Amino acid sequence: MRIIRYAVGGVRHYGELVSGDARIVRCEGDPFTGLSPTGHVDEMGDAVILSPLERPRIFGFAYNYASHVDETDREVPEVPVCFMKPSTAMIGPGDAIIYPADGELIHFEGELVVVIGKEARHVKPSDAHEYILGYTCGNDISDRIIQRRESAFGTLLIGKGQDTFAPLGPVIETELDPSALSLTTRVNGAVMQSATTADLLLAVPDIVSYLSRYLTLLPGDAIMTGTPSGVGPIRPGDEVEVEIEGIGVLRNPVVAENL
Amino acid sequence: MRIIRYAVGGVRHYGELVSGDARIVRCEGDPFTGLSPTGHVDEMGDAVILSPLERPRIFGFAYNYASHVDETDREVPEVPVCFMKPSTAMIGPGDAIIYPADGELIHFEGELVVVIGKEARHVKPSDAHEYILGYTCGNDISDRIIQRRESAFGTLLIGKGQDTFAPLGPVIETELDPSALSLTTRVNGAVMQSATTADLLLAVPDIVSYLSRYLTLLPGDAIMTGTPSGVGPIRPGDEVEVEIEGIGVLRNPVVAENL
Repeated sequence: MRIIRYAVGGVRHYGELVSGDARIVRCEGDPFTGLSPTGHVDEMGDAVILSPLERPRIFGFAYNYASHVDETDREVPEVPVCFMKPSTAMIGPGDAIIYPADGELIHFEGELVVVIGKEARHVKPSDAHEYILGYTCGNDISDRIIQRRESAFGTLLIGKGQDTFAPLGPVIETELDPSALSLTTRVNGAVMQSATTADLLLAVPDIVSYLSRYLTLLPGDAIMTGTPSGVGPIRPGDEVEVEIEGIGVLRNPVVAENL
Repeated sequence: MRIIRYAVGGVRHYGELVSGDARIVRCEGDPFTGLSPTGHVDEMGDAVILSPLERPRIFGFAYNYASHVDETDREVPEVPVCFMKPSTAMIGPGDAIIYPADGELIHFEGELVVVIGKEARHVKPSDAHEYILGYTCGNDISDRIIQRRESAFGTLLIGKGQDTFAPLGPVIETELDPSALSLTTRVNGAVMQSATTADLLLAVPDIVSYLSRYLTLLPGDAIMTGTPSGVGPIRPGDEVEVEIEGIGVLRNPVVAENL
């Protein structure tokens, strides 16, 4: 099932994409308490696609592909290293990534994103799939200058958490094996990252299990699983695309902040 | 105004403490959209006090008292260093801090907590008070072993974000000058931290201004402002109290995790 959140005539709905993503079966409810068709079908051409989640908690994993660890001249971490991005960082497909007025070095990071469907605590890796609603694409936008300054003191918030720094979408695909999906990030059409989720150091079931060992995951939580090698800068005027096999393309323009 | 969230007969309410905290004027609504008295008054003795917020976003500031920077053998950070604690870390007054089964070194950190009342972005320090609803006490419980391992890679989540690691309460005091409040943390009655918020490196107006420069603060956000010197370990069986002048005492027992 391909779950989409969208607006038609200014009214927001959840729906299920059908007919090769050409039409949307409009639904009542939400993906966590249950979606039921209203009987109305919308044309994709009439819809504005929204981020598939509303104000989620966003967890991120750092250094989770060996190829990216290599390019940062670090060692593979002793423990999984995680952070949070505030809900206000999230934007949807087509929304602008705002390049901060004082930004000096802003990077894209294409990532597979896990969407939690059920409250989860002390979940074994072999049971993780029962707590996962599905998967979407994410872009873990990072201000490298601030990130380095914060990380030197062992924390990370503003470097990853500024408004618009978490594009998510375009859909939540619920029937997908996440173990070997191709992931491609393009800037202005040029391929910058090309990888497979088979190379995740901590795979999706282990990611869910690890977090749930220490904290309660909630329906609607988004977990950004980490980025492969090839990260690089974006600038106002650029367009970034994150494409993941079986999910689709998350496309966002970069626009200068206008204070 | 002293805002309290509480339960009577299993039903949850917001209310205003009156008569020297002996009685609660029961209210409808919430502190962010507006509280209005229902006409009913509850006795404090009949009420179970809850955390003053429901599933807030929790932002934290690290190394924000010179005395604490000194005891960690670090320098004052080049930029403010922030992190988030997940909403699921929050507990209320009297709730148990769960000592993790694999915990080795768990510390208390008494802190002044700012509660945001209005959406805030690009706020000047001189205007910050307009966006603050009030203040409460917080305990930034930290797993030092995991914190050190994460921080070595420049991130911080599990070290601060485990379930029950963010006691908050007991009330939100809306009429308080935060610039020089005495803060005391006790473990089993012994004073471990004794400080004044006058020694905050980044004062409350600067904290709100800094975060809002990069991200949109939302009503109900809680900002833990950092801890002074004197942090130390807790163990199952202990009782921790954080007392802040003009707010009250946040008291929590420590209980071993039972897997």
